[in-house]
Amino acid sequence: MKKFLITGFSGFVSRHFCEYLEQNNIHSLVKGIDVHSCNFKLDGYKSINIDFEIVDLLDKGKVESIISEFQPDYILHLASYSSVAFSWKDPIKCFQNNTNIFLNLLEAVRKFNLYTRILSIGSSEEYGNVEKRDLPLTENHPLKPISPYAVARVSQELLSQVYVKGFDLDIVMTRSFNHIGAYQKEIFVVSSFIKQLVELKKNNIKNGVIITGDLNIVRDFTDVRDVVSAYYLLLTKGKKGEVYNVCSGKGFLLKEILNIISDILKIEVKTKTDTNLVRPSDNKMIIGSNNKIKNDLNWINEYTIDQSLSYMINYWETLL
Amino acid sequence: MKKFLITGFSGFVSRHFCEYLEQNNIHSLVKGIDVHSCNFKLDGYKSINIDFEIVDLLDKGKVESIISEFQPDYILHLASYSSVAFSWKDPIKCFQNNTNIFLNLLEAVRKFNLYTRILSIGSSEEYGNVEKRDLPLTENHPLKPISPYAVARVSQELLSQVYVKGFDLDIVMTRSFNHIGAYQKEIFVVSSFIKQLVELKKNNIKNGVIITGDLNIVRDFTDVRDVVSAYYLLLTKGKKGEVYNVCSGKGFLLKEILNIISDILKIEVKTKTDTNLVRPSDNKMIIGSNNKIKNDLNWINEYTIDQSLSYMINYWETLL
Repeated sequence: MKKFLITGFSGFVSRHFCEYLEQNNIHSLVKGIDVHSCNFKLDGYKSINIDFEIVDLLDKGKVESIISEFQPDYILHLASYSSVAFSWKDPIKCFQNNTNIFLNLLEAVRKFNLYTRILSIGSSEEYGNVEKRDLPLTENHPLKPISPYAVARVSQELLSQVYVKGFDLDIVMTRSFNHIGAYQKEIFVVSSFIKQLVELKKNNIKNGVIITGDLNIVRDFTDVRDVVSAYYLLLTKGKKGEVYNVCSGKGFLLKEILNIISDILKIEVKTKTDTNLVRPSDNKMIIGSNNKIKNDLNWINEYTIDQSLSYMINYWETLL
Repeated sequence: MKKFLITGFSGFVSRHFCEYLEQNNIHSLVKGIDVHSCNFKLDGYKSINIDFEIVDLLDKGKVESIISEFQPDYILHLASYSSVAFSWKDPIKCFQNNTNIFLNLLEAVRKFNLYTRILSIGSSEEYGNVEKRDLPLTENHPLKPISPYAVARVSQELLSQVYVKGFDLDIVMTRSFNHIGAYQKEIFVVSSFIKQLVELKKNNIKNGVIITGDLNIVRDFTDVRDVVSAYYLLLTKGKKGEVYNVCSGKGFLLKEILNIISDILKIEVKTKTDTNLVRPSDNKMIIGSNNKIKNDLNWINEYTIDQSLSYMINYWETLL
């Protein structure tokens, strides 16, 4: 029976990770921690047993007691203030809730001398502004962070390297690109599109108008169910000290995504650009290379974009 | 009358910076802050007026009130937990007292919308392990930090870049190599040599034994008086958003340094290696390139190694 400590448990990725363990009959004890309360059901699983606790990872003493009591085999460190926009508003909080919380976690594992494999989640934001000729981005591409959030993520990755080499901690790192799926909040672009379109359909509004940002940007979206299978693979088979892109390897125009959603829902919509949603310094196009995780660990991303979007539409239809 | 806020004021560099202002008749108001008390005289200067206050830069509110009241034209940010060895013992404290304190400072300047030029002091440690073929290290050399301290310094530099580009703050950065001079504590290698030799001479001990680390490593030492002239130059003429190496451009074997000291003092010594002082992962050789600061800003490093060592010997002779 393996023990997983999952930070940032109240987010949507951890819920999919638990479903992954359950569906694959991976008998496990899961300890979820988050600074926010958790709004999904923790019982009803057969293979896994979940315990949840509200914990502020900035509380070093509390982090130490959690780690020493639970003695996790694996830590899936999802906790993060992951909004780039927020990081411009409060860089201090962003830094503390990315880099400092991660350090508290590492120090607790070091202090108790545990054989814990840690998966440090990073971000494609670490690459910064990229040119079309750099695509798809491989792990060797230089890191040029251009937001406080991205700096915090790069710092986290650099600290991971130092803890692997200097303290022999067992850490694997990701640079995760955009992911999409059920339970994702509507502040994220694809969830926002789907929610608006499902509402229009429900209210039987033809040629309704939805509010968007720049529809001409290209992003690499991965189904969250593929993301959590990658995270499980990296926790159990990833090479210590290595960084892996987690991405689909494909670029999708936001306009295209919107068209697929309209087609599935069989409704027509018009779009209106909210200039507040257009970020001038945004990359026009981000596509990652997933060759490393595929070649080294045989990761497969199973879901097509149509499958992912259908799945999300189903989720929002039951919710609204 | 220009106003300089100097953090880390109780260290030896700030004292030389004040002497530089005095000697060059640069009429200034200096506000020194440090978490430790300051053990040198603050009066007796003609050109400058110094006010000192004990401040913990982690105290965000206090930092804000200092900055808004003093409204500095320049911030010389010397404060740092600058020991690599210490950073391995307490990475959290090291990170807080480098990166987090720097962020508090930047946020205060941003909050009050001040036209303040900030000099962010970084370290040659940011380069990490280097090969002989990479020397002398230019500013374009990739940063591969290998200690918690070095990561904290790289994070500080990355944050500086983001604050320049994202918030239009006026920051210049250094990567400062080893510096030496009077008032430097004996935990630093050259001061330690000189203190031991001056003691032997004073006690008239012939062929005494001094304790050293690895004498076969090469470091780039700059006289602190040249360092502070570089800092003044960078504060007043450095290009916003740019990073400058501050170094002599010359490599000195520690063995060589010890020989020069013996020659000046006219005593012979034997050395004994303390294996605790030998760091296995240390770079054998570090030499920086100072072409950028010399070519772009006409910086001159005036003092030869013999002059620097004589000056330090004088200092220790009056002290012991």
